[in-house]
Amino acid sequence: MKALVGYYSRSGNTEKMAQAIAEGVKKAGLTVDVKNVKDIKTEDLLDYHAIILGSPTYYGQMAAEMKTLLDESVKYHGKLSGKIGGAFTSCGGIGGGAETTIIGILQAFLIHGMIILGESGAYHYGPVSIESPDADVTESCIKYGQKIATLTKKVFRE
Amino acid sequence: MKALVGYYSRSGNTEKMAQAIAEGVKKAGLTVDVKNVKDIKTEDLLDYHAIILGSPTYYGQMAAEMKTLLDESVKYHGKLSGKIGGAFTSCGGIGGGAETTIIGILQAFLIHGMIILGESGAYHYGPVSIESPDADVTESCIKYGQKIATLTKKVFRE
Amino acid sequence: MKALVGYYSRSGNTEKMAQAIAEGVKKAGLTVDVKNVKDIKTEDLLDYHAIILGSPTYYGQMAAEMKTLLDESVKYHGKLSGKIGGAFTSCGGIGGGAETTIIGILQAFLIHGMIILGESGAYHYGPVSIESPDADVTESCIKYGQKIATLTKKVFRE
Amino acid sequence: MKALVGYYSRSGNTEKMAQAIAEGVKKAGLTVDVKNVKDIKTEDLLDYHAIILGSPTYYGQMAAEMKTLLDESVKYHGKLSGKIGGAFTSCGGIGGGAETTIIGILQAFLIHGMIILGESGAYHYGPVSIESPDADVTESCIKYGQKIATLTKKVFRE
Repeated sequence: MKALVGYYSRSGNTEKMAQAIAEGVKKAGLTVDVKNVKDIKTEDLLDYHAIILGSPTYYGQMAAEMKTLLDESVKYHGKLSGKIGGAFTSCGGIGGGAETTIIGILQAFLIHGMIILGESGAYHYGPVSIESPDADVTESCIKYGQKIATLTKKVFRE
Repeated sequence: MKALVGYYSRSGNTEKMAQAIAEGVKKAGLTVDVKNVKDIKTEDLLDYHAIILGSPTYYGQMAAEMKTLLDESVKYHGKLSGKIGGAFTSCGGIGGGAETTIIGILQAFLIHGMIILGESGAYHYGPVSIESPDADVTESCIKYGQKIATLTKKVFRE
Repeated sequence: MKALVGYYSRSGNTEKMAQAIAEGVKKAGLTVDVKNVKDIKTEDLLDYHAIILGSPTYYGQMAAEMKTLLDESVKYHGKLSGKIGGAFTSCGGIGGGAETTIIGILQAFLIHGMIILGESGAYHYGPVSIESPDADVTESCIKYGQKIATLTKKVFRE
Repeated sequence: MKALVGYYSRSGNTEKMAQAIAEGVKKAGLTVDVKNVKDIKTEDLLDYHAIILGSPTYYGQMAAEMKTLLDESVKYHGKLSGKIGGAFTSCGGIGGGAETTIIGILQAFLIHGMIILGESGAYHYGPVSIESPDADVTESCIKYGQKIATLTKKVFRE
């Protein structure tokens, strides 16, 4: 089973989160590709059992570059149904739109008919980093990757 | 495996949706209880593998009566993690807050660490009825119940 | 005083809504420009007292083309503060992401420090058209334009 | 002109924020009442030009006690149209539902036809305190109160 961790990043903060999430996915036994959104072709999305997307928080939502991928994914509308999705973001400060950015990505996954999951501990909707991810955020990213991979294995096992 | 379909309803519209969703859950092979929110004790939530809650759309969110159940569920915070959640609503008109009501319930489930799923066809976030549910809405409710039950069986099978 | 009605449209539905909203703005006595988002330069945003943006509903949020304009508007962050904002969308069906699309645009305006307003009648968050706008939707668009123009005049009068 | 700062608070954190916001409202020249939600009668809402409500973050939304006030305000639906609204919250941690709680309150105000405003600086949607408000949060609350009062005076002046 395979997972994609896709990110858009200018400062490198969201990319670091992507790497930590991928580490967690691998720990839980899935194959994982980490890709900059500019290197993701729409049809690539079909290959993965789990798709985890991260973007900086730009005006309370994912960056346009990430939205373009989702807009173009309409070509395969219905074909991503049943896959597992996850989302993460880096932002400039508390109350700065991080939650609405993550919820926005998760809503796109719901519209695709995908399965998403929350976390009763830190970062309920998905990992958030204020500026560069510190050790705690990195740990939360690793756990998030593990949790998504574990659910993916449950849902897709024979 | 057991599912709860909980609802708050004054006009009976949300209750009818609850019955249709329960029919779908049963079709897919799960035991199901349909309960008015006033008859749900907080500890009841622990007994179910799937929890599906519906409320009329009141000011863009679930009714206070339903929110009370969720607020009190903090007593078992962490214990609902891994369960499957779903949400539905009846409302007065298009663009009247139905989507934000459903998303609000789903966010509470994410905060509990629960698993939720979307639909690539009609009613992406969860079933919506404008006033009383017609045949199409009822059909969507039945399918939604089936879909949640099917995911529940996948996630909780041995 | 001047208002901008900006839209992204492929089918023409969102453009028709833009024209109706502009009609309302004019009725209430403001100068109005109606522009396709591809013809809006970021610095144009500085010239208007009110900015009303519309997009089709794509995966529960505005189209990437519209998001690009907002992302680039960061160049003038803080300079749009105090302006009046509004949002509208066309979508494929009920519960299809129209509300979350409008709320997404409004959140971007809040992050800019702008002022937004709701409607206690039809289309609480902003006008929604299922497919092509019918007479009722067109009427709601006209009223929405009037309402935003009226607030703009109140806020910016000497 | 009069503003209401209504709050629900168990730990006292949200109440402290309410006091700071009220201080800002007063500074800007409005009369202000600070009230616990249990002491607010629905009809009281009619008396104010601005209504600012705060709640702890419970499962990503306002507490049921605050929602009850809003649900009951349907009795005066349409009569709050044109008033100014604001929202604030205290929460347990970053990414813990604070933003969705504030947006939830603001959505209720939009459905009432009210006017809301964002902030291009800290706390875009409304003030957020992680646990007890520190000096920075308190300062943001005071500024938020001032900003809402200033807009109220603009909108309601003769």
